[in-house]
Parts: sequence; structure tokens; C-alpha cells
Amino acid sequence: MYQLIKKEGNARRGQFATVHGTVETPAFMNVGTSAAIKGGISSYDLVDLKCQVELCNTYHLHVRPGDDLIHDMGGLHKFMGWQRPILTDSGGFQVFSLSTLRKIQEEGVYFQSHVDGKRIFMGPEESMRIQSNLASTIAMAFDECIENPSPREYVEKSCARTTRWLVRCKEEMARCNARPDAINPHQMLFGINQGGTYDDIRIQHMKDIARLDLDGYAIGGLAVGETAEEMYRIISAVEPFMPVDKPRYLMGVGTPINIIEAVDRGVDLFDCVMPSRNARHGHMFTWDGIINIANNKYARDDTPVDPHCSCPTCRRHSRAYIRHLFKSNEMLGMRLAVMHNLWFYNTLMEKIREALDEGKFTEFRDHYLPILGKRI
Amino acid sequence: MYQLIKKEGNARRGQFATVHGTVETPAFMNVGTSAAIKGGISSYDLVDLKCQVELCNTYHLHVRPGDDLIHDMGGLHKFMGWQRPILTDSGGFQVFSLSTLRKIQEEGVYFQSHVDGKRIFMGPEESMRIQSNLASTIAMAFDECIENPSPREYVEKSCARTTRWLVRCKEEMARCNARPDAINPHQMLFGINQGGTYDDIRIQHMKDIARLDLDGYAIGGLAVGETAEEMYRIISAVEPFMPVDKPRYLMGVGTPINIIEAVDRGVDLFDCVMPSRNARHGHMFTWDGIINIANNKYARDDTPVDPHCSCPTCRRHSRAYIRHLFKSNEMLGMRLAVMHNLWFYNTLMEKIREALDEGKFTEFRDHYLPILGKRI
Repeated sequence: MYQLIKKEGNARRGQFATVHGTVETPAFMNVGTSAAIKGGISSYDLVDLKCQVELCNTYHLHVRPGDDLIHDMGGLHKFMGWQRPILTDSGGFQVFSLSTLRKIQEEGVYFQSHVDGKRIFMGPEESMRIQSNLASTIAMAFDECIENPSPREYVEKSCARTTRWLVRCKEEMARCNARPDAINPHQMLFGINQGGTYDDIRIQHMKDIARLDLDGYAIGGLAVGETAEEMYRIISAVEPFMPVDKPRYLMGVGTPINIIEAVDRGVDLFDCVMPSRNARHGHMFTWDGIINIANNKYARDDTPVDPHCSCPTCRRHSRAYIRHLFKSNEMLGMRLAVMHNLWFYNTLMEKIREALDEGKFTEFRDHYLPILGKRI
Repeated sequence: MYQLIKKEGNARRGQFATVHGTVETPAFMNVGTSAAIKGGISSYDLVDLKCQVELCNTYHLHVRPGDDLIHDMGGLHKFMGWQRPILTDSGGFQVFSLSTLRKIQEEGVYFQSHVDGKRIFMGPEESMRIQSNLASTIAMAFDECIENPSPREYVEKSCARTTRWLVRCKEEMARCNARPDAINPHQMLFGINQGGTYDDIRIQHMKDIARLDLDGYAIGGLAVGETAEEMYRIISAVEPFMPVDKPRYLMGVGTPINIIEAVDRGVDLFDCVMPSRNARHGHMFTWDGIINIANNKYARDDTPVDPHCSCPTCRRHSRAYIRHLFKSNEMLGMRLAVMHNLWFYNTLMEKIREALDEGKFTEFRDHYLPILGKRI
């Protein structure tokens, strides 16, 4: 259950209680697609990196190793050794972005697996059953994630279907939670707002799904082609219609700047592959801007990646060493870089919460917005 | 300095004191070729894996990032964050195995870099200067590693040259250690016995190099084409001529069986890429034999890789999870497997030392020889 502790403008400082522990918000969820963070990071490492929530992908885990296997192994928490909250997406986004030959019908989506080409069907009920098998803390509703821009007529039709799917998700989740073999009978359900870049459709859809009294609400279908300004405009348009007493999650977003701007507009939860993906290419976030560790100028630099950082990487290793590891294609380079970037994101959220606690979020925002996106 | 504590047959329990700490022998040195263990393992992880000595490769580090850079960064210990002893090889083995267009002359070897094709010269003096820049605890002499089998006449000629090179190594190391900018002025030098598969040449060469009173002696040029039985025969032939008060190192060897057999013949130190390389392909050592973690039969196995093992991997993760990581090509799978295999090797040596301490090495040997090489 979400408790709003404090507001500064639209920015919210809150606490979100779950059966797997309380999440201090705003928070960034660390993405472990296939039940592991890319870059050789284990769940035990994540604890040291101040991660509060791990996000796993339903579609990937359904295809491999199979959600039935994970259920037999006692659920995702036990399978990957993570005690804190887990959020699973619905599989919808991957069905629409990864799979081929997909066919959307009222009952759900027919598509081919990206691993072995096997024909798969997924609809609201299937997604809920899979997520129930995974036994995550929070399940996401099965929705259609529409490309931006899309024709108005298509978006209206799709949103109406996503709402009908959401009703089916809620009913199926109730059934799943009541099953005697449910590993997490307290699994929560978040609804997802869609509507492309049409403010009025977004608002109407938000009003429709708010009535279902779910455990939280996400804004989906953003960061998929529109500009950052359009994204901010949509958040501001939808936000007044999101329930105050439920957590709000902006899916798949984003850069540190995006996160600060979205917190400023009332968002509580985020997830993005950016910190780990960028790290694997040597792009590392610092409190002075973004560096490329492979750069020649770091060859003999014995200072840490970020002198203000106390992550496991910065506490122990120099820029020169990490650069050498990248130049030599040593896996350790990626691991050290991913650890740093995840710590950076989790610390960014910690600093945002502290600023909110002290009533200094506006100051924090104005100080960091011009800095954190700079390539230095 | 080496101190022999106890013998059982030819097997030796000893202590080898260095400026970077004392090594309990017999010991296995963990191979961090380019100043990092492959599989995303840091020097800090190695401490948790009971590693006593890390081995780094002179040739690789000379080519990239350059030994001058490592010298400027304060030496290998500081560069990679490892406080315990480091052994560097001479570069000779890589010159002969990795490089193309090599030409051996009395002064040394001309060859092309495997990274950028650059023409490089390396002789005894160059190898010593590079290793002095790296500032390892123990430097290896520059030698020619001959293929097995090789013609007798060639082996005789090569061995004589290797002995002349060794004299030059010793002189150059004395100069390097006396330099005001020497990072480790106490760097030690090990000589390397060669002689192919000819017992008489091996013995004569061992007698020749023993006279130089070096800090330790290695048997090189084995595990390069000959059978295990030939290797054991050569160790037994050479061993009586190795100084009793110096550590003995069998280069590049080997399987757990090879190690037990060689300890039984009087060897103190080992190194091999096998534990980390095999781990990266899912081959994991256990006290019941070798398993392939990708095997289907582990898909729903929630027991650890080895129920008798208390490594960081076995303490926390199941066979089913590690198998999933391998099937999904998650880097974490390799990391967990490498950690397990290095722990296994380091624990094997610990058990060997305990058996020697208790006068039960023969019992230990007879118990494990039929088990540890089995594929189960």
C-alpha cells in the first residue's frame, strides 16, 4: 500500500509497502531481464548497489527457462536469490517489439517466439497466469504498447481493448491469487495508461482504469518515438487523473534528466536498461556528467571514475584500470561499469528522496538538470 | 625464501616467503592473463576465493596496456588492486605460441604482435625490464619453450641457449632491482628447466641452472603435446636434481589429477587456465567428478553445483539457476562458474596441504585419483 509522506510542487515522497518489504519512493527499478542483470551482476550484488526493486521480463522468462519451471523452483525470488520486491512486466511490450508475425485479436496476441520461432498465444489471462507462476511482488497488466505517432482512430480502438483486457487481468489475478499453489497469493496488479500522444485519449483512458481500483498505475507507451517534451506534456496532462493514494510508474524511462523531470511531475517509479546497457559500452554516469571510459585521456588516470562516488567500483579501481579492461575486452570491465551505473541511478533516487525530505527538491533539480546530461 | 616443513614420500609441504606475503605450498596460482581473471572476477573476488598467488602474462601486458604504463601507475599490484604475491611469466611461451613470423637468434626473438602486427623484439634483457616495470613478486626467466616431440639435436642446441639466456636474465634482474625507480627492488627470479622429452638433456639442464642459485625453479615445456605418463616420468627424472631449498613450479599444469600426481613427485607450485576456461564452457569441478551444468538433467535441480562446496556460488545459487544463465548466455553464469572452479582448485591445494600436515597424503591421493577426473 502506498503512503504519500510529503509533496513539493507535484513531486511526491512516499513509501510503498509490499509483502517483500517497503519501497522508499521515488525509486528506480533495476532491470534483470532474464532473471539476471546483464554484466555479471547477481541479486546479491544488487543489495550492495542499493537496489530496492528488481524488474524481470515475463516474455523472456516464459520462453526460457519457462514460467512453469520457475514456479516449480519456488518462484523468481527463490530462483534468483532476491528477497526484496520484484516487478514483472506483462510481456506485452516484448510481444510487440521482439516477436514476428504477430496478430492482435480481442482474445489476445498470436506471435512467434524470438528464440525458436515457436507459435505462442498470449492474452490477459495467459500473462496473469505466467506472472503468477513467476510469483513477482507486482504484476503488470497485459496491454498493447502503441508506436508513436499512431493514427488517432487506431489509438482509440486499441485503448478501449486495453481497458477490456485490464478488466480480464484483474479477474484472472484474483483467480490466480486464490489458487492453492500460488507462491505469492498477495501479488499486486498495476494498470497501464495508454493513448499515444493524444492528451484527451490519455486522460479518458486514465479515468477509465482508475475506476478499477488497482494497486498502482503506470504510464506506458512513452519513450517509444516521441520527443522528451511531448513525454513531459503527456505526464503533466495525465497526472491529475491518477489516484493520489497509489504509486505511479513511468515505464522504460530513462536518462537521469528524464527521471528528475518526471519526479517533478509526480512520478514515483522508474525502470530502464540504460544504466546497464550504456555501461557495457563504457558510458559511465558521474555527478559531473557522462564519461566514455575507453577515452584515451583516461589511460594513465589513477583517480576513480567519479571522485564523488563510493560505489564498489570507485572505492577500489582506477579509470586507467577500467579503461584497460575495456580495451582488452575483459568481462570484468563491463561488470565494474554496470555496478557503477546502477549505483549511480540508485543513488540519484536516494538524493531525490533526501531533497524531498528536506524540502529542497527544486534546488536539487535546478542544480543537476544542466549537469547530468553533459558528455565530459 | 622457501622452507620445507614436512615430506611424505617425495611430496613436500612448505612455506614460501615473499615481500608480498607467505605462500603456503603446494599452491595453485590463479591466472589473470591481462591483469584480470576471465569471467568478470576482480582481485577482490580472488581474496574470497582463497587465491594465494595471481599469475599475469608479460607478453599480453607488454602489448596492452604497456608495461611502461603499468610502471607509471605504480606496478601491477596497485593497478589491479591485489596485495598478495604475483608471478609474471617471461613472455617466452606467448612469443612462441601466439606470435607469427618469429625468428630466434642468440640475442633473442623477433616477432609480430598478435594485436596489431607490430614488429617486436624480446630477449632476456627486455623480458626482465618488462617484468621489472610490472613489479611482480616473482619474474620468470626468458626461455625457449620447445614443442614435444622435437629432434634431439634441436633440443640440445635450444637448451644451451636457454641456459645462456638465463645467465643474462640473472644479470639484468640485478641491474633492474638496483634501479632507483624499481617498484619492487626485491623481485625474485625463477629459472626454467627445458629439454623436451629427453630425460638426460632435462637432467643435465637442471644441473646447469641449479648452479645459478636462483629463487626458484620451474619445469617448463610440459603439457605441450606429450602424454601425461611422459610428463610424470620427466618430473620424476628431474626432481632429484632440483634444489631442495627452493620452490618447484610445474608450468601450465593441469587437471586435478595432474596436480595430485605432480605433488606426489615433489612439485610445489602450479598454474593453469583450465579452471576458468572450462568454467566458461559450463564444465564445473566437484568432489564427485566433473559436471556440465548446461545438461538437461539440471533444469529443475535446486541443489548447489557441489553439495560439499562452500564457495560463494554454491552457498547461494542452484544448478537450475546457473544452467538457466548458461542457456540464456547471461554473463553471470560464467562468473558464477569461474568462481566455483577457482575455489575448487584453491581448496584442492588446501586439502593437499592438510593431508600432508596430517601425514595422510597417500591416502588422500588414492581416494581422489579415481574420482576427480570422472565426468558425471
